[in-house]
Formats: sequence, C-alpha cells, structure tokens
Amino acid sequence: MTLSRDMLEASPVASELPVEAVAAAIDACLASQQSCVSCADSDLAEDDVTAMARCVALCVTCADVCTLTPRTLSRRFAANHGVTHHVLRACVLTCTDCAEECERHAAHHRHCALCAQACRACAHACEALLQAEAFAQLQKLAGA
Amino acid sequence: MTLSRDMLEASPVASELPVEAVAAAIDACLASQQSCVSCADSDLAEDDVTAMARCVALCVTCADVCTLTPRTLSRRFAANHGVTHHVLRACVLTCTDCAEECERHAAHHRHCALCAQACRACAHACEALLQAEAFAQLQKLAGA
Amino acid sequence: MTLSRDMLEASPVASELPVEAVAAAIDACLASQQSCVSCADSDLAEDDVTAMARCVALCVTCADVCTLTPRTLSRRFAANHGVTHHVLRACVLTCTDCAEECERHAAHHRHCALCAQACRACAHACEALLQAEAFAQLQKLAGA
Amino acid sequence: MTLSRDMLEASPVASELPVEAVAAAIDACLASQQSCVSCADSDLAEDDVTAMARCVALCVTCADVCTLTPRTLSRRFAANHGVTHHVLRACVLTCTDCAEECERHAAHHRHCALCAQACRACAHACEALLQAEAFAQLQKLAGA
Repeated sequence: MTLSRDMLEASPVASELPVEAVAAAIDACLASQQSCVSCADSDLAEDDVTAMARCVALCVTCADVCTLTPRTLSRRFAANHGVTHHVLRACVLTCTDCAEECERHAAHHRHCALCAQACRACAHACEALLQAEAFAQLQKLAGA
Repeated sequence: MTLSRDMLEASPVASELPVEAVAAAIDACLASQQSCVSCADSDLAEDDVTAMARCVALCVTCADVCTLTPRTLSRRFAANHGVTHHVLRACVLTCTDCAEECERHAAHHRHCALCAQACRACAHACEALLQAEAFAQLQKLAGA
Repeated sequence: MTLSRDMLEASPVASELPVEAVAAAIDACLASQQSCVSCADSDLAEDDVTAMARCVALCVTCADVCTLTPRTLSRRFAANHGVTHHVLRACVLTCTDCAEECERHAAHHRHCALCAQACRACAHACEALLQAEAFAQLQKLAGA
Repeated sequence: MTLSRDMLEASPVASELPVEAVAAAIDACLASQQSCVSCADSDLAEDDVTAMARCVALCVTCADVCTLTPRTLSRRFAANHGVTHHVLRACVLTCTDCAEECERHAAHHRHCALCAQACRACAHACEALLQAEAFAQLQKLAGA
C-alpha cells in the first residue's frame, strides 16, 4: 500500500518530516487499527474470555488511538507539531501495551499473534517518526 | 495488504459472507479513510478553496463513514446483519458522492485524482459485499 | 445541553428537518457514545466477564455508531439524505440491541442500567428523526 | 449532563483522579467534538471560505482529538497513565489552537463564537485534569 505516500506527495503543503517515514507510520496505524478491532472481537468469542479481558481492553483502546494517529499524520495544513508529538507518543505506548498482552496469548490464539505483530510494527514506525521529528528540529537549530 | 483477511480467518466466529469480499471491503475502506482525510487537508491549502469547499465537506464525511465501515465488518461476535447492511449502504452512497466530486477536480489536483480512485474502489467493494449478503440470504431461503 | 441546537441554528445552511429533533438526536448519541465506552470498560472488570462478553461487544459497536451519527447529523453542507437515513437506521438497530442486552444485566450492574437508559433514549431520538424525515419528504411531494 | 459522572462512579475499577474533574473533561470534550464538526461544516458554507480555511482545518482536527479524549478518560480497566497524559496534552493544544482561530471570526460568525467557547472550556477542563494527575502522582511519592 503506497496510496498514503502518493497522497502525502500530492499535498500542496511542504513538510519537514521524511515522507516515507510518515507514510510508513500511517500504513502501520491503519493495519493496527483493523487488527485491534478484529482481535478484540475474537477475544470475546473465545472460551477463556476471563483470561482475555485485558487483551480486549487494550485492543479497543489501541484501535482508537490508531484511528486518530493516521488522521493527524495525514494533515499538514494548520498542523501543530506539539499535537503530532503527543499523539505519536500515546500511539507508541498503547501499541506497546497491546503488543505485550497479545504476545502472551500468541501461542494459543492466532488472532493475538497477528495483532501483536501489527502493534509492534506500528510502535516501531511511530518511534522512527518521533526520531525523525527530533532530528528535523535539531537541523533547524543548527541552521539558525 | 492481506492482514485483514488473516485476521478474519483467525476469528473463532463463522460468517456467511465470503472472507475475500469482506477483507477487500475492509482494505478499500481503510485506503479511502486515509485518502479522504488527506484530500480534505490538501483542498484547504489550494488557491481555489472556494471551488474546493464541497470536496472538503464530502471528503470529511466519507473519511468518517470509512472509519465506521471497516470496524463494523471486522466484528462477527454479536454482529447484527441490519447494522452491517445500513452501514454498507451509507458507505456506497458517500464514497460515490465523494468520488464524483473528486473526479471534477482530478485534472488539476492529483490528490483529487487519487482520492477519486480510492473512493470508487471502496464503493465497488461495498456494493460487491451487499450483493454477497443478498446472495447468502437467498441461499438460506432456498435451503429452508 | 443546548449547544448542539445553538450550533445548528448558527449554520448558514437551511435544513428541512426540525432543529429540536436533530439536536435531541445529536445529544442522545453523544450520551450513548460515552455510556457505551464506559459500560464496555466496566463489563471487562466485572467478575462475571464471560456473562458480559456480549454486552462488551454490543457496547463497543454502539459507541462507534454513536460517534458517526452525531457527526453526520451536525453537517448540512453537501449532506446526502440517503447517507443520513442509513446512518440513522443503523443507529436505531445498534442502540436497541445494546439496550436489550444491558437491560438483562441492569439489576446487578448499575453501569448497565444507566447505559440501557441512554441507548433506549438514543434509539427513540433517532426513530423520531426518521419519522420527521419521512414527513418532510411527504410534505415535499404534497407541495409538488 | 451528569451521565458521564454516574457512569464513572458505577465502574468497578477505582481511580486516583477526582471523578468530578474527569467527568467535566469528558463532557467538555463531547461538547467540543460536536461544536467543531458543526463549525467546520458551517465555515465551508460561508461566502468567505478562503478566510475560513484554517478554521475548517483546526475544527476538523479538534473534533477528532475530542473524540479520542473522552473515550480514553472513560476507560479505567487496563488504563495506561502515559497514554492518558499524552492524549490530554494533545487535547489542550488542539483545543487552544482551535479556540484562538474561532475567536478571530467570532464577531461575524456565531458558530465560531460558540465553538471558541466550547474549545476554551475543553482546554481548561483538560488542563485541570493534567494538574489533578500531577497532584495524584505527588501524593503517591509523598506517601511512599
């Protein structure tokens, strides 16, 4: 899926952030958004619901954060770097929590194994973007 | 992107709908969700904002419907066919509206050309699913 | 809360639907949105999670539909009556499902009793709006 | 609207945060969520769309953050304080941006005047909650 990259490149507004890193984070969030909604639903249908309760809660929250993050990253006009920063940090935290919990059930529930992978990938993509953002700010300071 | 298909196949709940068609609609919605958020943002930064106002409004609405649809389609436990049906119909209508408007600007704004394609593809994937749903109901009646 | 009514009345776009009925549906949806998110979370923390699994699933879905509905109803510019109609019908169905399930647990879980009330009220407000919409269309036909 | 407070009080999970402050922030977010969706729509229908483009962009973003914040605040089970903290900070920033822009148009567009008030109130309620959160952490340290 490179549509998100094409969309970013078609924007009339320039960005300091590398477009590949932003597109990668958007795509990773969209994947997690879906995997978390689906994993929470599957968890509720498993025989061991009690053992899965925490997984449901984390997946439901992660799906919501992974809905806001790609929206925030897709917008450049009137974007506020502080908002982007805090949204990315919330996304890294919630994806990491969710991945850790899903990993605990990965051996016996395939939906958890798949969702854990998607959440890990999303946390990494958002962390990479936070680093790119910090680097862009350093470059600005060095140029000033 | 076949993660959504893998997630559906890992669900402990059976479904009457063909998994490829559901996964295709989910993926098409996620693509439209992103393209519509991005297109609305780009529209607002263009010189001819007045001419783009309707495009912004339709993209913003389409992004919201394309956020609900994949969530609805990803859930099988306690799913209500009527809810799925009405969400799919709302999605076909809003994606068609949005595609038509974006097509009017496709020649001069690449983001509109890309978004129009994504919305057309999403409308088709959701229509295909509505047909699959009607067919599944007919088969039930024939079996009864 | 009359802010939603004030916002609708401040819109430069006229609407055929009675503003009180639209505002009432918006407010009822916002209340259900919150009660369903909260009820799903409380359900997961109860001792009898297995018995609450269906309630979690219905609340999670209802919260999502009750997020889209007030957004759809708050928009008049470029609004598509078909989209509004199908969103309202999905909302009535999901709120009714959710209210019925919450009512089953109302005697022993206060969050379910409160959520059931909010969902019933939302279903009624959306049904009233569907009737107002049908009446507006009849008046148009009679005038033609 | 005290439903959100009643819902929080009915939760089986204890919280360190004062329930009135959390409920006030939830209610303020729900109000901003609606006012921002409505204000963006009204902006697009005004004659001076070009002058309103920034207001549309900020309202659309603010509506999305004000959709995530009350969901995050309504959940206690498996809640991550870091996620709550970053979501609240993103919410204060985006509500403040949006209020400032809406205030610039408040004299000639009533929807902007109303939306500015709702966003200011939301920023204050979220700031109050961030202070309550910091105070709760200090108390923990003092007790340890």
